[in-house]
Amino acid sequence: MLAEQSEIKKLIDLLARLPGLGPVSSRRIVLHLIRSKGSRLTELASAIQGVAEGVRECVDCGNFCSDLKCRICTSPERLDDQICVVQDVADLWAMERSAVFKGKYHVLGGVLSMLHGLGPEELRIPILVERVGVGGVQEVILALSATVDGQTTAHYIADQLSATGTRVTTLGRGVPIGGELDFLDDGTIAAALSGRRDY
Amino acid sequence: MLAEQSEIKKLIDLLARLPGLGPVSSRRIVLHLIRSKGSRLTELASAIQGVAEGVRECVDCGNFCSDLKCRICTSPERLDDQICVVQDVADLWAMERSAVFKGKYHVLGGVLSMLHGLGPEELRIPILVERVGVGGVQEVILALSATVDGQTTAHYIADQLSATGTRVTTLGRGVPIGGELDFLDDGTIAAALSGRRDY
Repeated sequence: MLAEQSEIKKLIDLLARLPGLGPVSSRRIVLHLIRSKGSRLTELASAIQGVAEGVRECVDCGNFCSDLKCRICTSPERLDDQICVVQDVADLWAMERSAVFKGKYHVLGGVLSMLHGLGPEELRIPILVERVGVGGVQEVILALSATVDGQTTAHYIADQLSATGTRVTTLGRGVPIGGELDFLDDGTIAAALSGRRDY
Repeated sequence: MLAEQSEIKKLIDLLARLPGLGPVSSRRIVLHLIRSKGSRLTELASAIQGVAEGVRECVDCGNFCSDLKCRICTSPERLDDQICVVQDVADLWAMERSAVFKGKYHVLGGVLSMLHGLGPEELRIPILVERVGVGGVQEVILALSATVDGQTTAHYIADQLSATGTRVTTLGRGVPIGGELDFLDDGTIAAALSGRRDY
């Protein structure tokens, strides 16, 4: 198109490929950035470059970090005897937002999936088995999605860890906070019933 | 939060301020970018930097360009005798997508608004009067929004141009293509009726 300049067009195309964005929202963002006069653009460009250069994976847990090990793995305040296994860094962030867990993490980078060709080697499961094998870990909490692939992965990990004798737990299943029974699926209600506690 | 690294946090905050994005969608985009391994991030950073450095306003029409004048103003294929007045560069792009208009543009950069302190001087209206005053312009098409502020601005511009004797027109009002009468507001139906044509 004659109207849109090549630099602008390129940026719109790049942004439109991001999750949740399309050509229309991307165009709106670019116009907003240009209108905000230079400084915002430069600030955003350098922030992105900063992430590109400064972010790597923690060798222990797989969380994002700027050094060899992440801030959770090196923190003296985090307990060494609990490891929470999550599918993804997004899940790790979600766990941290709840601010309840005080142990360390292990990010798998996905769940076992025949369809996507993801086996144990691709998922950092051997590293987890090694971490637990070294000793000092009392409990491995499997905080994986309650989906078929997630539960297959949980089962596989529990099996791999059985030889170490470490306690393996999973997240509780039941009614989410704020959840109305009327809107819950049968599986959740069944799980909540079997997981009932004394009041 | 201990989990999110400062570089990542900064980028999430910057993106979350963009129109249509919030903390959740911004976090999703940043994770997607990091997972796509460096190259995407660098590409995006340089695209943004390119826009920051290479984009300026055309001195004639106010469109975005990389030189003194934009590609539409300097194109030998575009007619000099028609000027289409639009509120914003986004509207210019929308007009260009329809690929019907062959004249040149004039971007106001907003509409007259007491509330936002936008007077004629802020809106490049004097430059428009000057462009038309030079001569050679047969028609000025006011392609402004059908809102109160848009129509106030159209009225003001028509008034300013009356001395030049140039023909001033506005976009047709009526049923949009694909529009169902049942869902249209009364004003549009009234406008369509008074703007009816022989079949």
